[in-house]
Amino acid sequence: MAKRIITVSREFGSGGRTVGRLLAEKLNLKYYDKELVKRISLETGFDPGYIEEHGEYAQGKSALAYLFGGTGHPDFMNGMTPADFLWCMQRKIILEIADKEPCVIVGRCADYILKDRPDVLNVFIHAPKPQRAERIVKLYGESDVAPEKRLDDKDARRRVNYRHFTGRDWGSVQNYHLALDSGALGLETCVDLIAAAFRAEPDAKETK
Amino acid sequence: MAKRIITVSREFGSGGRTVGRLLAEKLNLKYYDKELVKRISLETGFDPGYIEEHGEYAQGKSALAYLFGGTGHPDFMNGMTPADFLWCMQRKIILEIADKEPCVIVGRCADYILKDRPDVLNVFIHAPKPQRAERIVKLYGESDVAPEKRLDDKDARRRVNYRHFTGRDWGSVQNYHLALDSGALGLETCVDLIAAAFRAEPDAKETK
Repeated sequence: MAKRIITVSREFGSGGRTVGRLLAEKLNLKYYDKELVKRISLETGFDPGYIEEHGEYAQGKSALAYLFGGTGHPDFMNGMTPADFLWCMQRKIILEIADKEPCVIVGRCADYILKDRPDVLNVFIHAPKPQRAERIVKLYGESDVAPEKRLDDKDARRRVNYRHFTGRDWGSVQNYHLALDSGALGLETCVDLIAAAFRAEPDAKETK
Repeated sequence: MAKRIITVSREFGSGGRTVGRLLAEKLNLKYYDKELVKRISLETGFDPGYIEEHGEYAQGKSALAYLFGGTGHPDFMNGMTPADFLWCMQRKIILEIADKEPCVIVGRCADYILKDRPDVLNVFIHAPKPQRAERIVKLYGESDVAPEKRLDDKDARRRVNYRHFTGRDWGSVQNYHLALDSGALGLETCVDLIAAAFRAEPDAKETK
């Protein structure tokens, strides 16, 4: 079946967000990243900064709570934490967007949320740690924390968040139609390969 | 750096071997699969059937021994089992082949063995279980064992063998430059995408 939607999951610092943006430009698709945050903010009243952090990352103490299955959050409502509520709204909006128009969606477990649609191409972008470290320093500057530590922290929080809400392993090869090493291939080659996969029709005939 | 060699790792029944063969034809590269087995047989004296089984798969009781780090094998020599000896010879031959000529190598931990070469493109082919089950029944026929069970068994033995000899997780996304779902993309699209990645030069410029 022809594809209409691309989800891009990515390791922190792999350039996956840039790949998503360039893909949307190349294929003339609507691009959802900050735009998605803005829309969620409008519909929920959550602050965009809160959504950026809590929509993809397990937070401090609650990361442990995620791991052990409880919410461990004081301000629950019917056992629902703000993070749970945000997840539900985010899920609803991603499903609506997918129904409405062809697009590229970066992050936010969109691969899992749209897993029952046959018109979605799920992509994962990763890169070796030294290249990611160099990239985040270039893009976000130095900080008191060593870049390798920042990478480990962000990836761990994404992994815990993904696990909690999807029950699956983040970055597990089986969850994606394409997983690409942007460090080895370069960002532009990643864009070209994903665009080619998006446009391709699956083989009509099976080859022995 | 331009690529000269492609290694293809694959889930059982994903069509990865076919992808490797078609790739070699398309790119006019030497193809090492049965050819590699033959060569190892000539150099070691092991029977080709033995090499096919022991070169990639943990065996029965020794699978457990692998897991717990010991060899547990009665006929050792300086602590080296036949499987260890075969691994060393296989490694030596794969390194020689890589030095000699551009090629496609299927399986046999070649991705790990050649990990220090910058001219290697490492590929992993996987597919959803129902499609793999259908494929193995079509290719290898029915047997007393359910196809899903045969898939689980083969994949588990590959995973244990890979872990034992490389210390890494088989099928972990970070070990491969491209990981493709042949069930969703089709074999021919996989071949086209890998060929495009093989031919591409990494970006000279970095994109923000």
